[in-house]
Amino acid sequence: MGMTITQKILAEHAGKNFVEPGELIMAGVDLVLANDITGPVAIKEFEKAGGKEVFDKEKIALIPDHFTPNKDIKSAELSKALRDFARKYDITHYYEVGRMGIEHALLPEKGLVGPGDLVIGADSHTCTYGALGAFSTGVGSTDIAFAMMTGKCWFKVPESMKFIYRGKPSPFVTGKDFILFTIKDIGVDGALYRAMEFSGEALKYLTVDERLTITNMAIEAGAKNGIMEPDDVTLNYVKDRAKKTYKVYKSDDDAQYCDVREYDVSKLEPQVALPHLPENSVNISEVGDITVDQVVIGSCTNGRIEDMRMAAKVIKGNKVHPYVRMIVIPATQEVYLQMIREGLMEIFVEAGAVVSTPTCGPCLGGHMGILAKGERAVSTTNRNFVGRMGHPESEIYLTNPAVAAASAVKGKIAHPMEVIKNDI
Amino acid sequence: MGMTITQKILAEHAGKNFVEPGELIMAGVDLVLANDITGPVAIKEFEKAGGKEVFDKEKIALIPDHFTPNKDIKSAELSKALRDFARKYDITHYYEVGRMGIEHALLPEKGLVGPGDLVIGADSHTCTYGALGAFSTGVGSTDIAFAMMTGKCWFKVPESMKFIYRGKPSPFVTGKDFILFTIKDIGVDGALYRAMEFSGEALKYLTVDERLTITNMAIEAGAKNGIMEPDDVTLNYVKDRAKKTYKVYKSDDDAQYCDVREYDVSKLEPQVALPHLPENSVNISEVGDITVDQVVIGSCTNGRIEDMRMAAKVIKGNKVHPYVRMIVIPATQEVYLQMIREGLMEIFVEAGAVVSTPTCGPCLGGHMGILAKGERAVSTTNRNFVGRMGHPESEIYLTNPAVAAASAVKGKIAHPMEVIKNDI
Repeated sequence: MGMTITQKILAEHAGKNFVEPGELIMAGVDLVLANDITGPVAIKEFEKAGGKEVFDKEKIALIPDHFTPNKDIKSAELSKALRDFARKYDITHYYEVGRMGIEHALLPEKGLVGPGDLVIGADSHTCTYGALGAFSTGVGSTDIAFAMMTGKCWFKVPESMKFIYRGKPSPFVTGKDFILFTIKDIGVDGALYRAMEFSGEALKYLTVDERLTITNMAIEAGAKNGIMEPDDVTLNYVKDRAKKTYKVYKSDDDAQYCDVREYDVSKLEPQVALPHLPENSVNISEVGDITVDQVVIGSCTNGRIEDMRMAAKVIKGNKVHPYVRMIVIPATQEVYLQMIREGLMEIFVEAGAVVSTPTCGPCLGGHMGILAKGERAVSTTNRNFVGRMGHPESEIYLTNPAVAAASAVKGKIAHPMEVIKNDI
Repeated sequence: MGMTITQKILAEHAGKNFVEPGELIMAGVDLVLANDITGPVAIKEFEKAGGKEVFDKEKIALIPDHFTPNKDIKSAELSKALRDFARKYDITHYYEVGRMGIEHALLPEKGLVGPGDLVIGADSHTCTYGALGAFSTGVGSTDIAFAMMTGKCWFKVPESMKFIYRGKPSPFVTGKDFILFTIKDIGVDGALYRAMEFSGEALKYLTVDERLTITNMAIEAGAKNGIMEPDDVTLNYVKDRAKKTYKVYKSDDDAQYCDVREYDVSKLEPQVALPHLPENSVNISEVGDITVDQVVIGSCTNGRIEDMRMAAKVIKGNKVHPYVRMIVIPATQEVYLQMIREGLMEIFVEAGAVVSTPTCGPCLGGHMGILAKGERAVSTTNRNFVGRMGHPESEIYLTNPAVAAASAVKGKIAHPMEVIKNDI
C-alpha cells in the first residue's frame, strides 16, 4: 500500500519504512519553534524537568514576534525570559526586534525549513511550512520543552484529505480565496486531526507566498497539517534560501485518502469570511454594504512581499477613506526593506496608511490596532472569532490583501476592480 | 516699563496694552489641543457643562497620538471617544491614524501654530511651540473643555528668565544638549511657573527642529512656557507652512527678567541625563561604561526630520549591537515619508533597527518598547523618571539622537565620533 507525502515524512523521521494513519510514533524533529508567548512556558517546563542543555542549538528557533516591540511590562518580561534562555544556551536562531519577523514568515524566508522537514512549533499556525513540502504542526509548550531536550516528539499519524484545484483563477482571486472557500466547504472542524493535502494544476498559478497562505490556514479547518508536493516553483524558492539539503517527497499513486474534493477555481470570486468564523465565507458580490473602521494587512497569513505588492497595486493613486485606519504590517524586516526598495512603502504612506514594524499585533488582539466596541475591521489575518481583535462586540471580516486594500479606499467592503487605477 | 515677548503675546490676547507678572488675565486662544488621553476627559467635562457647540471648529486640534495604533481595548475606546466628538462637531483638525503624528511635532509641521499665537493644550509638552515665537502651555482637561466652549482661558502672567547661549557648538552638540545642560544648571523646578526665554547668537546654529527640542523641555524645569524671538530661520520655516498670518513679537530692551544666565556652548559636550531626573546631566566623557538594552529615537522632543537625519548619519554603515533593540519612531507621517525619500528608512532597517509608525509610545510607557525589570534604555525622549518606560526597576538615560544612535551600535553609551563612518 502506498503512502501520502505526510506519511512518508513521518515514517522517515521515525526511522520506519511504513507508517499508517492512527499509528503512534516517536520521531526526530528538524526544527523546534517557540515565540514570546509560548517560549517562556516551554522554558519553565524545560527547567522544571531539570533541563541542562538543548539537543541542538542549531535546531531551535526562538522568535519574539507576538507582542513586540513590547507593549507592556508583562510582555517585556516574557521577551526577556526568551532572550535570556537564548543567550544562556547560545541558540543560533534567536531573532531580536530589528532583525526578526513573524515566525511563520521568517523561517521560510531564512531557509530554515524546506521539503521533507519535520517541524514543530508552539503556535497553531506552524502548519504554514507545508507549502514547502514539509510536515509541520503546532504543539503544546510541554512538547516543545521535551523536544528542546531530546530532539524528539510523539505524533499520531494523521489520515489525509486530498483537495484538487482545477482551472485558472481570475485576477485578485488568490491562495487566500482558495483556502477560505475550502474551509467554507468542509467547516472549521472539517479536517480535524487530518492532513490537508493541496494539489491540482491551479496551484501552479500561485506564488510560494500564496501557497504558504493556504497551508497556514489548514488549522482553521482543524487539520494537523497542510501540505503540498514541491514543484519547480517551490524548489526555486528553496534553492535561493536553503541552509542545508532537503529531501523531496511525493504521495504515491495508490496512497489512501479519507476524502477527495475537487474545485474549479476559474469561476471563484474573492471570498469574504463574515463574523465570527473562517467558515462563514461568501462571494464578495454577495456581501452588500458593510462599512469599515479599520483595515489590517499583515500576519503570518498574508504579510509576505507578494501580499504587499498586491495591496500596493490596488492602493496606488488612491487615498484611504477618511473614516478608515489602514494598518499595514510587513511580516518580516526583509519584507519591510523590500517594500522600501520597491517603492511600496511610499505608496502606502502617501495613501494615508501606517506601516508597522513586523509583529503579530492586532491579529490576536495583541496590540497595534485593537478594536473598540462596535467597530468593524477587514483583515487579511486568519481568525475572525468573537473579540479576536479587541472588544467582544467588534467584528472582523477576513479577505485577501487586494480586497482589504480596496475596502480601505471605499470605506466599505469592495472588490479591487472598483478602485484600481493601474493595469492589472 | 517694557515687556517681554511672553507678556506682549498675553497682553494682546487679553485685549490689554500692558500686563505684568503675577497678573491674572482672561485671554482668547488661537488653538486648543487635546489627545487620546486628555481629550476624552475634556469631552466628558464639555458635555457635563452642557456644551452644545464648540467656539470655532477651525481652532481645535484633536490628535490620537499616545496609544495609537491602539494597544488595547481601553485605548481603542479612548480614541473612539475623540473620533466621535470630532465627527459630531466637524472638527477641522482631527488627525486620524495614517494621517497624523505626535501632536507637538504635527502642529508646527502643518502650519497650525506660529509667531504671536496663544496656544493651550492638555499635554505638558505643549510648551514646544515657543520656538516659533508663540506663547504655548499645557493646561488641564477642564480648561480645555472651557476653552472649547468659549475660546478663552485664564492665565497668571509668568515672570521671565533669560538664557543667553554664546559661541558655536561642536559637531553632535545639539539643542537637546543646550536644554539638558540648562536644566542641570537650574534644576527640575528651577523655572517653576516662569517663562524661559532662550536667546543668544548660538541659537542661529540650530535648525528649527533643534530649537523646538529646547522649548519642548522647558516644562522639565517646571516652566509655564519656553519661548524664542523669531528670526529669519523661524520665519522661513513658518512661511512655507503657515495657514494664516502671524504677528512677530520681540522683547523690549527694558523688559524685566527675574534671572539672566549666560552659557558658552563652544566647550559644551553631548549631555547624558542619568536616571531618574532630567537635571542629572553629565558630560558624555564622564559617563563611563553603561551597557544598553534598548535605544529609542523619537518623541515630541526628538522625532523630527533633523533628528532622524542626525541619527542616520551616525548609524549609516554600522550595525546595531546584537544585544540592543533600536526603535526609531518618526514623529509624524510626513517625517516618515521624508525618511523613505531620503533613504534614511533603509539605513535604519539595514542596520537592524525597527522603524515604528508615529506614536508617543514608549516615551510615557505606553507601548512600542516597554522595558522589563533591570533593563536600561538610552532615549531621546524628555523624562527619565522611575518607571517612565516600563518596570520601576528599569533605567532611562536621556541623550540627543546622535548619541543614542552611537550607543545602539556600541551596545553601551558612546560618543558619535566613536562609530561614525561618514564625513561629519
